[in-house]
Amino acid sequence: MNDIDRPFEYQLLIKQILKMPLAQASRRQIVYRGVERFTYPQFVERVNRLGNALDALGAEIGTRIAVMDWDSHRYLEAYFAVPMLGSVLMMVNIRLSPDQIAYTIDHSGAEILLINTDFLPVLDAIRDRLPKLRAIVVLSDNGETPAVPGSVGGYEALLAAASAHKEFPDFNENTQATTFYTTGTTGLPKGVMFSHRQLVLHTLALMSTLMMAGLNGRISREDVYMPLTPMFHVHAWGFPYVATMMGMQQVYVGRFLPDVVCHLLRTEGVTVSHCVPTIMHMILNAAAAKDIDFTGWRVIIGGSALPRALCEAGLKRGVDIYAAYGMSETCPIMTMTQLRGDILDAEPDRKEAEIRLRLAAGMPAVLCEVRVVDEVMNDVPHDGIAVGEVVARSPCLTPGYAGNAEASAALWRGGWLHTGDIGTMDADGFLRIVDRVKDVIKTGGEWISSIGLEDIILTHPAVFEVAVVGVADERWGERPVAFVVARPGVTVDEDAVRDHVRAHADTGAISRYAVPDRIIVVETLDKTSVGKLDKKLMRNRATALLGAAMA
Amino acid sequence: MNDIDRPFEYQLLIKQILKMPLAQASRRQIVYRGVERFTYPQFVERVNRLGNALDALGAEIGTRIAVMDWDSHRYLEAYFAVPMLGSVLMMVNIRLSPDQIAYTIDHSGAEILLINTDFLPVLDAIRDRLPKLRAIVVLSDNGETPAVPGSVGGYEALLAAASAHKEFPDFNENTQATTFYTTGTTGLPKGVMFSHRQLVLHTLALMSTLMMAGLNGRISREDVYMPLTPMFHVHAWGFPYVATMMGMQQVYVGRFLPDVVCHLLRTEGVTVSHCVPTIMHMILNAAAAKDIDFTGWRVIIGGSALPRALCEAGLKRGVDIYAAYGMSETCPIMTMTQLRGDILDAEPDRKEAEIRLRLAAGMPAVLCEVRVVDEVMNDVPHDGIAVGEVVARSPCLTPGYAGNAEASAALWRGGWLHTGDIGTMDADGFLRIVDRVKDVIKTGGEWISSIGLEDIILTHPAVFEVAVVGVADERWGERPVAFVVARPGVTVDEDAVRDHVRAHADTGAISRYAVPDRIIVVETLDKTSVGKLDKKLMRNRATALLGAAMA
Repeated sequence: MNDIDRPFEYQLLIKQILKMPLAQASRRQIVYRGVERFTYPQFVERVNRLGNALDALGAEIGTRIAVMDWDSHRYLEAYFAVPMLGSVLMMVNIRLSPDQIAYTIDHSGAEILLINTDFLPVLDAIRDRLPKLRAIVVLSDNGETPAVPGSVGGYEALLAAASAHKEFPDFNENTQATTFYTTGTTGLPKGVMFSHRQLVLHTLALMSTLMMAGLNGRISREDVYMPLTPMFHVHAWGFPYVATMMGMQQVYVGRFLPDVVCHLLRTEGVTVSHCVPTIMHMILNAAAAKDIDFTGWRVIIGGSALPRALCEAGLKRGVDIYAAYGMSETCPIMTMTQLRGDILDAEPDRKEAEIRLRLAAGMPAVLCEVRVVDEVMNDVPHDGIAVGEVVARSPCLTPGYAGNAEASAALWRGGWLHTGDIGTMDADGFLRIVDRVKDVIKTGGEWISSIGLEDIILTHPAVFEVAVVGVADERWGERPVAFVVARPGVTVDEDAVRDHVRAHADTGAISRYAVPDRIIVVETLDKTSVGKLDKKLMRNRATALLGAAMA
Repeated sequence: MNDIDRPFEYQLLIKQILKMPLAQASRRQIVYRGVERFTYPQFVERVNRLGNALDALGAEIGTRIAVMDWDSHRYLEAYFAVPMLGSVLMMVNIRLSPDQIAYTIDHSGAEILLINTDFLPVLDAIRDRLPKLRAIVVLSDNGETPAVPGSVGGYEALLAAASAHKEFPDFNENTQATTFYTTGTTGLPKGVMFSHRQLVLHTLALMSTLMMAGLNGRISREDVYMPLTPMFHVHAWGFPYVATMMGMQQVYVGRFLPDVVCHLLRTEGVTVSHCVPTIMHMILNAAAAKDIDFTGWRVIIGGSALPRALCEAGLKRGVDIYAAYGMSETCPIMTMTQLRGDILDAEPDRKEAEIRLRLAAGMPAVLCEVRVVDEVMNDVPHDGIAVGEVVARSPCLTPGYAGNAEASAALWRGGWLHTGDIGTMDADGFLRIVDRVKDVIKTGGEWISSIGLEDIILTHPAVFEVAVVGVADERWGERPVAFVVARPGVTVDEDAVRDHVRAHADTGAISRYAVPDRIIVVETLDKTSVGKLDKKLMRNRATALLGAAMA
């Protein structure tokens, strides 16, 4: 700085998260399925052992190391040990098709694979398409390690054989730490990438954003954390790094089974989780959840918009439920909502205002700049009404897609990351997502939010789940079509649902153009590998159905 | 990162703190002495106006702009506008002697000075020693701007004339943002310096460290913040940046007067403050404080160790009082203490354990590495007993002292910042400061902590304040001498105090060598410009006194 040399260039490295005294000396535990328990000192030692074991397998700066596992203490160990070596953690989306799994592992350049025995059949089917792979480590819950071609042994045996002490190396904070692949409904999966600097800043930003909450979502180091988002999915939204830095009690559920989750919630005293709406819906409606008092459980909902009906159902059961917003490309935290006294104190209907705040995508996270812009990148008015595309800048965004210059340039056109989401911004700084750019329905010269329409249909008592898509229409451009799943034991009457929507249009809450032409009752909704509605597939299905009907 | 160019290099700049929607759109206020109130949008507009006004005065990247003011909204505006221009904020310690003020302003290279009318007599006396100064802006509470040679006008007039809109420039995050001078008891003041990156990371680290608290010190955006540390003193410990980022209600007291502080505490509903022990002592014992219920007031104590008696007095009055640790060279947060359930749940005497935790310097702040080392830089055992010097690394430490290569090299010897403090580290990660390296008393081959001895003397009912220093002794090396101030209306008996200490020595709590030879009753203790005990002066005084007694 000016007249002085800096004597020590501090680099923002993931190992700094683990150097915190709470991560080293917390008396809390890291719990796997309620079956295995590790103290923090044991956990730190296992990270050291894993680092030494991977070192022995030739892991270097830049070496890609892939993981296929359910949420586990092992995954958490890899979150630290792999990047702390300077290697790149490749988090494989185990819900993709074998074809896509083969593509993503090979495209990432992974040389080492840590794989749960549950996925060995998949590996067997794609092994010959992974020529770069030179070492396989088998992860097993029961201590048995099946013989696998190319395996260097079981995870626990490797750890046991390695030294418990390790000095992880220093390197530049811009060194790549992680990669994983986005699961769009079009084209090949695209690899995103994050550096040490980005993940450390994301950890601080997420933590600060979470912790400043005053009226709800008051999370502290005394909480018990259990992710309900897969750890391969955008760093489990970055929460495991935060929980570890704070020395929190942590619970990992293994393979996701609603009954196991409900059991762990109760027996481990879980107080904070995060998941997509589908999972929350599943848990609240699980048989095992009937007797559970959810009071004191904070759940942050992301991945898709938080439907009002789900929010109200959660609140009724005692869950402090609220939304956050991000995507694979953004590490992911971009915004998070929280109740704010300065707003609520001025509201005549405080309860209604609280729900409105809980449903918002939220306020930009610490250090995240979020804008809602028109086609020429001018900000739309911050009135909560004007819509535009959501674009962002923050220190945590992927610089692009691996080996895909064209898609990278499109993502970052004009120097801002384009989310592909349509939103509004209000005067208090709250972002609301109206729809995906590609899901919004253009009809009769108006834009109809498929999410807004779904929210209304979900308030009909016979409807359990819903998805609205637009199908091409010669006269109107597009017309909305709704797929609905009935509540168990109930029959959905299509006309009744349509009348329900029309009644909302009569009040002016939505446009008359938004009343769907067709309500299609189905058994289940089409979903993508990460549990989001697959609207592309449903659009095709609706188009085919309507075409058939017209023919 | 590897195969991709970064499309946008996000820089950690102070302007990002102000871009947060809470700083832009909070409905809370920034309050000055209960007299002036600014909404956040008004505050942001004033920062823009100040930026434009300083721009017009020729402020550029690197221009030094000095401020002499009490804690105020104006100072907060300068915290943002000056560095956001790329200029360097020089925070003048207004408690230094006119000589030292002249030295520090001139040494910093300040070209522009923002000065409160209260300090114009000082300026008048030193004006001819400030040849680099080319513009003076007068800050005034009553709207009147006295004629001052070299003045370009009053602060409010300049703001009123400037545009309310400003795009602050982008630049490298390592650009210097602030400077100020340490006030050691030896030698000339030394200038420390901090960059944008350092202050942004300090803001995130302080915020995360503060907010993770679970059992006490649970601060949130719903709090009302009032600093009781001067804003010229180490960025008011970095809290104003945190409070602004969170959109908190903020109260600035102007000139420190205990009655005004007590009035504001009550009328503004203040819930979080920070100060040195002396100030806390003054407030708890102020006449105006008699009727105040302090319940719900969180006070973080730093600058000097938190004495047990003060902690207990605070707790008795309902204050959630606890310690933090840092210094001018460290931005300042290095450690902060908080109650931890994982420790307290295992303690038989929970109440005593809570006090022990509140008194600790605390756990290293987020991203801060703190070690306690012996002479050859090996870590001492983490047993809470072994003592050594406290050294640190973090992304927020001054790279050295401006224009003083020798002192800089000494500060950073071995690549670690040397604090000059003696401490212990326990197995839970808590640092405790035993003494300053130069204040520790070496007697009869043992090291006696002057702070530990003060803590014991303070528990004597007749003692109001105390300071212990070591004076040279031919036989023992050094011998402890205590200066004590009696409680109002009470007489201190020297022998009774000595017996009180001896009783503690009899229990083995302290060494027999620690019983002071002399207890000197005084009216007030000698303090430095920032309110810390001036032990150097007291050592000289004690030496002279004892010499006279022996002669």
